[in-house]
Amino acid sequence: MRLSVVGAGAVGRSVAELANEYGHEVVALADSRSAAVADGDALDVAAVLSAKRETGRVGDLAPEAALDADYDVLVEATPTTLGDAEPGYGHVVEALARDRHVVLANKGPVAERYDEVRAHERESAGSVRFEATVGGAIPILSTIADLGPGQVTAARGVLNGTANFILTRMAAEGLDYEHVLAEAQDLGVAEADPSFDVEGTDAALKCVILANVLGDGGHTLDDAEVSGISDIPGEALDLAAEDGRTIRLIGEVAGDRVRVGPRLIPEHGTLAVSGTRNIVQLETNHAGRLNVSGRGAGGPETATAVLSDVGRLPPLE
Amino acid sequence: MRLSVVGAGAVGRSVAELANEYGHEVVALADSRSAAVADGDALDVAAVLSAKRETGRVGDLAPEAALDADYDVLVEATPTTLGDAEPGYGHVVEALARDRHVVLANKGPVAERYDEVRAHERESAGSVRFEATVGGAIPILSTIADLGPGQVTAARGVLNGTANFILTRMAAEGLDYEHVLAEAQDLGVAEADPSFDVEGTDAALKCVILANVLGDGGHTLDDAEVSGISDIPGEALDLAAEDGRTIRLIGEVAGDRVRVGPRLIPEHGTLAVSGTRNIVQLETNHAGRLNVSGRGAGGPETATAVLSDVGRLPPLE
Repeated sequence: MRLSVVGAGAVGRSVAELANEYGHEVVALADSRSAAVADGDALDVAAVLSAKRETGRVGDLAPEAALDADYDVLVEATPTTLGDAEPGYGHVVEALARDRHVVLANKGPVAERYDEVRAHERESAGSVRFEATVGGAIPILSTIADLGPGQVTAARGVLNGTANFILTRMAAEGLDYEHVLAEAQDLGVAEADPSFDVEGTDAALKCVILANVLGDGGHTLDDAEVSGISDIPGEALDLAAEDGRTIRLIGEVAGDRVRVGPRLIPEHGTLAVSGTRNIVQLETNHAGRLNVSGRGAGGPETATAVLSDVGRLPPLE
Repeated sequence: MRLSVVGAGAVGRSVAELANEYGHEVVALADSRSAAVADGDALDVAAVLSAKRETGRVGDLAPEAALDADYDVLVEATPTTLGDAEPGYGHVVEALARDRHVVLANKGPVAERYDEVRAHERESAGSVRFEATVGGAIPILSTIADLGPGQVTAARGVLNGTANFILTRMAAEGLDYEHVLAEAQDLGVAEADPSFDVEGTDAALKCVILANVLGDGGHTLDDAEVSGISDIPGEALDLAAEDGRTIRLIGEVAGDRVRVGPRLIPEHGTLAVSGTRNIVQLETNHAGRLNVSGRGAGGPETATAVLSDVGRLPPLE
C-alpha cells in the first residue's frame, strides 16, 4: 500500500521508518508546518527525517500537500484533540471522500465523532481502522472484531501508561504523588502538563472508543464519568497494600456506561500491571475472560498497530 | 457459511450449538459412528444432539456422509492423533481437494503434517485455519498473523490447563502430585489417563504449531524437547515459594527450537497464571512483549475460536 502519513511526531515518524519492513511505501509525510511528497515514487524517509531534525521541517510544501498526494492509505497521526476533533476529523473525511482508506493513531475522530466517521465510511470505497488508538501495541480492537462485538459484554483495563507508572512507583517506593510525577516528567514518561493523562482524559477517550466499537457508536467523551489520580495520597496505597490490594486507574465499559477512575484491585491480580504497561480484559459470552497486555504507548509500538491495520485493509479497486 | 462438523465431542457439539449465533448454519454433523446430513437445508442441531444423548448416535448415515455433504467449511474436531494424524489429516486433504475451507480444532494435522497441509492448501481454492488448536479461546494465531509472523521473534507460555491446575494446587495447598492428580480427575480437569497432559505432549503439540506458523513449517512433535510434571515433588514448590518463585509447565518457541518443561518463574509474574488458564507471551521486533491469556480449553471456549476462524474466511466462488 502507498501511505501518506500526516503527523510527524513519534508515531508518524515510526510509521514512516517501519513501513518498508511491512511491505508498504511512504509517498508523503507531513508535520504541522510542512510536507514532503514523492513524485510518483516512494519517499526517501531517512532523508526526510534527517531534514526534519536539521531544519524542523520535513519538506518545502505546505502540509496540505500530503492530503492531495496519490496514496492508498492516509495514516492520521496528528495530536488528539477534543470536541470537533479537528484537524484530524477533516483529514478523515477528505480521504474517505476520495475513496481512500484511513488508519488512525489520533483518538479524536473515533472518540468524539464516531458516528459521523462511520457515516462517511459507508459512502466511501475506503475503510477506517484505528487499532493504534486503544492500548498502543495491544491488538484489542482486532480481537473484538474477530470475536464479534456482540460477543463481548464488557471491557475494562489499564489504558494510560503514565498514570500507571505513577501509581506503581507510589506503591513500590511509598512516595507521594507530586514526587513521583516530577520523577516521571524527568524520565519523559509524563508531559510537562500531565493533566490529559493523570486526570483520566486519555484513558476515557480510549474507553469511549471501545464503547463505540462494542455498541456501534453513540458515545463521546461527554458521556464518560471520569476521575483521575492526582488527589490520591501515598497513604492510600500503603493502606491498600496492608490488605493485599493496590490502586490502579481503571477504565470500564459495560452496557451504555463508560467510567474511568482509581479502583482498589488485588495487588497480584491480572489487572495490576506495572510501570507503563497497559492491559485490557474482555468479558465474553462463551469464551470467558480474555486478557491482553503489552506496551500501551511509544512510537514503534504504536506504529506496529498502525501497520497491522494497514495489513488488514482490502486492496482498493 | 455452511458448516460440516466432523467430531461430536465437547468442541464439535459447541460449534454446532453456537453456529447460528455467529450467522452460520450447520449442514452436517458426524461423530465416530454416524452422521446426520441436512438435505439442502440447515440441520436441526438441537434434535440431532438430543438423538445423540438418547441413542449415542447423531444420525443414521455413515460418518463419511458428513464429508460428502454440500458445505463451505469443514470443521475438523475429531480427537488429536500423533504420527500420521489420521483420520483428521485425510479429512483436511479431502475438503481442500473439493476446494472447500477447513477450520481445525484437531491439532494433529497442523502439528505433525503442517507442510503437507499447506501444500494441499496452495492447490485449493479453500483455506485452512486453526486458531482453536493453540490456547483454546486465546486469539494467539490471529495476533501473530496481524503482527506478521516475521515480526515475532519468540513465543512462550502456559499451554496446558490440566498441568497448570495441578501445579497451582500443589503450590497453594502443599499437596503432592498424586493427591492433586486424583482431585483433578474427580473434577474432570484431568483424564483417567492423564499422560497426554502431564507429560507435556499436548503443550508440545501447541508449541510445534506455533513454531510452524512462525517459521513457515518444518516442525513436528519429534523435534520438540519435552519433559512433564509428574516427577515434581511437592517440596520443590515449597522451596520455590520461599524464594518468591513457583513452577509452571512452560512451552517455548525460539528460532528452530521447541521446548516444553517445568520452569521456575516469579510467583506473581505474568506467566504464573492460575488454575486451568493459559497464557502466551510473544516477543516482537518493534512492539515489545505482548501477553494474551484466557481459557485454554472447554467446549464453548474452543468453539468460539473455531467460529472466529470461520468469520475470517473469504467467501468461496
